[in-house]
Amino acid sequence: MAPIIYVNDAHRHVGETVTLQGWLYNKRSGGKLHFLQLRDGAETIQCVMFKGDFDDATFTLADRLPIESSLRLTGEIREDKRSPLGVEMAVKQFEVVSPVTQEYPITLKEHGVEFLMDHRHLWIRSRRQHAILLVRHAVVKAIRDFFDERGFVLVDAPILTPNACEGTSTLFATDYFGVPAYLTQSGQLYMEPACQAFGKVYCFGPTFRAEKSKTRRHLTEFWMVEPEVAFMDLDGDMGLMEEFVEFIVQRVLQNRRKELELLERDLAKLECVKRPFPRISYDEAITRIKAAGHEVNWGDDFGGDEETVLANQFDRPVLVHHYPAEIKAFYMKKDPQNPLLALGCDLLAPEGYGEIIGGGQREDDLEQLTASIKKHELPMEAFEWYLDVRRYGSVPHAGFGLGVERTVAWLCGIKHVRETIPFPRLIGRLNP
Amino acid sequence: MAPIIYVNDAHRHVGETVTLQGWLYNKRSGGKLHFLQLRDGAETIQCVMFKGDFDDATFTLADRLPIESSLRLTGEIREDKRSPLGVEMAVKQFEVVSPVTQEYPITLKEHGVEFLMDHRHLWIRSRRQHAILLVRHAVVKAIRDFFDERGFVLVDAPILTPNACEGTSTLFATDYFGVPAYLTQSGQLYMEPACQAFGKVYCFGPTFRAEKSKTRRHLTEFWMVEPEVAFMDLDGDMGLMEEFVEFIVQRVLQNRRKELELLERDLAKLECVKRPFPRISYDEAITRIKAAGHEVNWGDDFGGDEETVLANQFDRPVLVHHYPAEIKAFYMKKDPQNPLLALGCDLLAPEGYGEIIGGGQREDDLEQLTASIKKHELPMEAFEWYLDVRRYGSVPHAGFGLGVERTVAWLCGIKHVRETIPFPRLIGRLNP
Repeated sequence: MAPIIYVNDAHRHVGETVTLQGWLYNKRSGGKLHFLQLRDGAETIQCVMFKGDFDDATFTLADRLPIESSLRLTGEIREDKRSPLGVEMAVKQFEVVSPVTQEYPITLKEHGVEFLMDHRHLWIRSRRQHAILLVRHAVVKAIRDFFDERGFVLVDAPILTPNACEGTSTLFATDYFGVPAYLTQSGQLYMEPACQAFGKVYCFGPTFRAEKSKTRRHLTEFWMVEPEVAFMDLDGDMGLMEEFVEFIVQRVLQNRRKELELLERDLAKLECVKRPFPRISYDEAITRIKAAGHEVNWGDDFGGDEETVLANQFDRPVLVHHYPAEIKAFYMKKDPQNPLLALGCDLLAPEGYGEIIGGGQREDDLEQLTASIKKHELPMEAFEWYLDVRRYGSVPHAGFGLGVERTVAWLCGIKHVRETIPFPRLIGRLNP
Repeated sequence: MAPIIYVNDAHRHVGETVTLQGWLYNKRSGGKLHFLQLRDGAETIQCVMFKGDFDDATFTLADRLPIESSLRLTGEIREDKRSPLGVEMAVKQFEVVSPVTQEYPITLKEHGVEFLMDHRHLWIRSRRQHAILLVRHAVVKAIRDFFDERGFVLVDAPILTPNACEGTSTLFATDYFGVPAYLTQSGQLYMEPACQAFGKVYCFGPTFRAEKSKTRRHLTEFWMVEPEVAFMDLDGDMGLMEEFVEFIVQRVLQNRRKELELLERDLAKLECVKRPFPRISYDEAITRIKAAGHEVNWGDDFGGDEETVLANQFDRPVLVHHYPAEIKAFYMKKDPQNPLLALGCDLLAPEGYGEIIGGGQREDDLEQLTASIKKHELPMEAFEWYLDVRRYGSVPHAGFGLGVERTVAWLCGIKHVRETIPFPRLIGRLNP
């Protein structure tokens, strides 16, 4: 029996007879030769069948197989300078692992998005989707490596949470043994006490928004990483955002360049994502957006259009800080110099990808926070545990949340976030 | 201004004046000296205040502060051979960051579990809980490193799923824009098509069971890692389980020895967790359990008691394979030699920690799987996409799921899984 190897190890077996297992990605025939493209999940290799080496039935079968048939091929690995892999296989034994009885539904012709999404479990085999999800994995790994290497402790936040603190309109609810529970929108409230226990923490998991907005930037289920650091202020927070985003981009460029090239990403636009990033105040942002001919008033929150106008003025991500407190969450610390402003900061990705990070310094004063909860007419009782963060050893602290799917969309240069997660969930899309 | 450093860097600053920030973990006074234990989340250091260096008010205040007050201390780092850290601080400046007005609710006296769970956001500051959660982080990192280093691709499975395939009794349901959705119990059905796209995959995220069983091994929300490999059979699957569990245990021993020692874990019992693990068939397991004086019949599933009896016969984890097909899930491949048996395998941890892995080879034949779905009276329509795995390039494939919390409980040697996750969710426990 020939040893079974993976395609990406084939170059170490030149001159040897080995077995490869995988799926028929593509094929062409030239009379006495079949050229089979075999993919095994990691790589694709050309496997050449010469008519003289097979009986007629086998040689004919090999030409008639539908694509995505599963195969086991044994033969000699030989050098092939023309192939990107550097090697090909001269097939000596041909085995169909499982016969395919129907044509593979995804063909080279154009399919509608709904059709492809209905067949997401098959679509992920195709080259572009494969590349996007490899970039996603690299982004996730870069995120975890960044925090692990810097002494942050992973503190998983719960998914099931007891309170609909900011209204139920964008929450998924469930019956939790007779009481209502809600799927988390953010782990932040849990990271704040956690940073008092561990100093520097992060959570990283799925979060949920039952938003009815059907845009190319919204999923109902998406992954978010949320670091939180004790004794860190807004300025430190902005520094951490910068360092973090630079790290992710440069790591992905390093480890997934081939995939980015396959996706025809303009790499120069990623290569310049280096610190320092421009930092502008909300006030300056308003001035810039107005100067660009857009109507916007002080106090407005930015939508996708405003974000794009602003981000297009820079060649790298831009940090926008000191938003009006009115448009930010109740837990944001107010600027001591001007209580109309919140010590919050968003990071906008270039090229129209919009906000990928939102964060800031948290209110660490018990009285201020209590007043803010009252002002927002939130149920005080639900926040008693959260107020303990300010009762027992309160410290300045800050953090942020980065959305994985928007980051992957930006890095891959694709329009819609639905392709950046293996099995996307959107309004009207819960399958497969 | 003295540089601000973390406690675990203090040994690099002997003879220097630095600032430390953190919380008062403990204190004692001896007339002219206060000994403050300052913890900053990563480490604890002794900080000595000499009466002569402070005005009376400050020196008195330092003695009266409740524990967990937040402090900023500046002083000289000096060697201290008696301290586990090797250094201490001679405090010159003492600053309370935020005054604590109430006594810290968790004291050294015995608290009931419900009280501690109600104060979980504070309880995680205490030494044991801190250590357990550091072990958890190390387990999570070991899991990801294992698969990343071996070329597995991370493919996140969805949390919101459309079908209550195996009944709704243990499922959390939610209204998904007018249609029911359920919180996932396992990502396996999604990993099967994913392994056809990527060869070797894993998902790692929260999973949910609305089980009413109130045991020390059950959470309603827990984290599970699920690898799936194309062209892998039961034997390969068992090999992967062994290699994986050995890797996790040895990595944690290497990186979190101090925490395991603090938890008074018997390290010898972990050090012997080396391959090969004993492998016994279900038949042999039945014989062994009977021989140990327990009543059990062929065809019975094992409960916690049977698992403990069995596991106690070995000094390392044991693999139990070839269970009766009747007690296993519909997707398990039947043993071609004896269709009454399923090609499944569970891994039981030693010392009564029970099943931490369940897995096996999946049915890869379209007709067999269709028949099994019918036999289990499951809705065929809901499985059409899953059947595509067998329609388009079906291959032998296998995988498993490992529960993080049970693994952490075993490694830490603690009885109840509720302490192995930052914010546990159990029946009657949805707070904080």
